Amino acid sequence: MSDSWQERSRPTSLERRDEFESYDVLRDFLDRAADLSETMDYYPNMGFGRDYVNVTIYADEEANDITENQREFAKKLDELQNV
Amino acid sequence: MSDSWQERSRPTSLERRDEFESYDVLRDFLDRAADLSETMDYYPNMGFGRDYVNVTIYADEEANDITENQREFAKKLDELQNV
Repeated sequence: MSDSWQERSRPTSLERRDEFESYDVLRDFLDRAADLSETMDYYPNMGFGRDYVNVTIYADEEANDITENQREFAKKLDELQNV
Repeated sequence: MSDSWQERSRPTSLERRDEFESYDVLRDFLDRAADLSETMDYYPNMGFGRDYVNVTIYADEEANDITENQREFAKKLDELQNV
């Protein structure tokens, strides 16, 4: 996982913020992230405005931690962003 | 503007939360909201997860209030949601 992700506590989460030069590129990233969510059946909290997207992956409630599947999602999201 | 919007203070904002039965319908709403943003050149704060979308319209900094253009955006977003 790249250092683009910040690991936080209380509550345990991984967060990533990206800024975009254009809304078209931002929308394309959102679309690919949503496709990835459907593929992996994992849906993080997403926030966006005109020029930024925040992604927050909260620790799985049952595991009380970030799961391997969530870390895999984070890694694949990095790959999308670096295309 | 419908009563789906909550008007808040500190900071002054309009907020709307919608829940969705399916991710496909949610994505369709996000797409139409993004199209509306481009048409009106106004980009609210959007947040979403698997089954919800939150939209927050913060008071325009210069006007120090919700502007007519922002209220028009809110109204048009209602129309999208009620299609």
